[in-house]
Amino acid sequence: MDATKNLVNNDFSDIMMNRHSYRKFKTDVKISREEISEMLEEATTAPSACNLQSWHFVVCDNEEGKEKAHSVMMPFNYAQTDTSSAVIFVLGDTQSHYKYRDVWNKACENGQITPEMRDKVFKTFLPLYEHADRSFLEKDATIDGSMIAMQLLLIARAHGYEANPMSGYDFAKVAPTFGLDGDRYIPVTAVAIGKPDGEFTKSVRYSVDDVTDFM
Amino acid sequence: MDATKNLVNNDFSDIMMNRHSYRKFKTDVKISREEISEMLEEATTAPSACNLQSWHFVVCDNEEGKEKAHSVMMPFNYAQTDTSSAVIFVLGDTQSHYKYRDVWNKACENGQITPEMRDKVFKTFLPLYEHADRSFLEKDATIDGSMIAMQLLLIARAHGYEANPMSGYDFAKVAPTFGLDGDRYIPVTAVAIGKPDGEFTKSVRYSVDDVTDFM
Repeated sequence: MDATKNLVNNDFSDIMMNRHSYRKFKTDVKISREEISEMLEEATTAPSACNLQSWHFVVCDNEEGKEKAHSVMMPFNYAQTDTSSAVIFVLGDTQSHYKYRDVWNKACENGQITPEMRDKVFKTFLPLYEHADRSFLEKDATIDGSMIAMQLLLIARAHGYEANPMSGYDFAKVAPTFGLDGDRYIPVTAVAIGKPDGEFTKSVRYSVDDVTDFM
Repeated sequence: MDATKNLVNNDFSDIMMNRHSYRKFKTDVKISREEISEMLEEATTAPSACNLQSWHFVVCDNEEGKEKAHSVMMPFNYAQTDTSSAVIFVLGDTQSHYKYRDVWNKACENGQITPEMRDKVFKTFLPLYEHADRSFLEKDATIDGSMIAMQLLLIARAHGYEANPMSGYDFAKVAPTFGLDGDRYIPVTAVAIGKPDGEFTKSVRYSVDDVTDFM
């Protein structure tokens, strides 16, 4: 992984402990698509169930994209949506296991793995997905999408930006608005990224003792 | 946030880019409950929808806890479960909005916020949760739980450990096994943490171009 040339902050503790949600950004800041792709590439180091990588991104970084993003948002997210450099919708891919079968078949055809190894993969975890009901596939894709979104929130800070994860939008509108197959892709979260304009509101957390059971 | 005294690696790029799933750990390594709580406290800097913090942890770090963890796992996760220093189940709390109402009421009673401010909160987003169906609450709790789990995976490395997020277990068994209310708490993931014994298997990722649409 060499895609770190735009990293301006490498202080893990600062990046994680001082991350806050900013809801207003400087409107004159443009992030190049090269850097956005770099951030997404870094984010894809996230784990996923069976390495299915059930994530998909829709990047809204120009007027047309921003208008589409705005059209699905609830009003309390308009400020972040409209002022950020980019809004990146993170979706879950409920059909990632289709692709994965193709990947292994291709690797086998290319002689990279033996048919026996491929068949072992096909017999162990892929049937779990191929026989799974919709709610299982949606949950798996939601977990994968959320984990990669968390990485993206941290990466934004490492690149000198701030971000805000947003859940307040019309989930049913997302796929049709962006021309995606709504049976395949489900919304998980949307991340507004940019240079902050103004302060964040500090939010408090419950004590660890309140949310932890030691067995 | 001062809970960083056990941080042994603060290199963000290394922590994120070189994180891999380890499936076997050194069995003679014990992590103190103080340090586990410290890691969880650091993880709670994760964002959550409306700051509801819909997460809950069950820590299995002794023989009794490990046996319970083992009893819910699928066989391919036995090695991580049995050899790790701790398995931390991350659950989602589908009733976090009950607590949140109490929190705001208490803050109001204590004079920290005005009744008007409290009522504004109660009128804006809390009704979204109080009138939400089960699938909405589960999805929200799954997203919150996944994001905090991703932070925990990174924090493990910052503390000098490695980890493995596990999805392969019997979801229905988790709440009864740990004496939790299954209507309230839903399993999201389980994280095995410890000092690795042996190498990880490198997993490849799809190219960003394959999973990204620019609008």
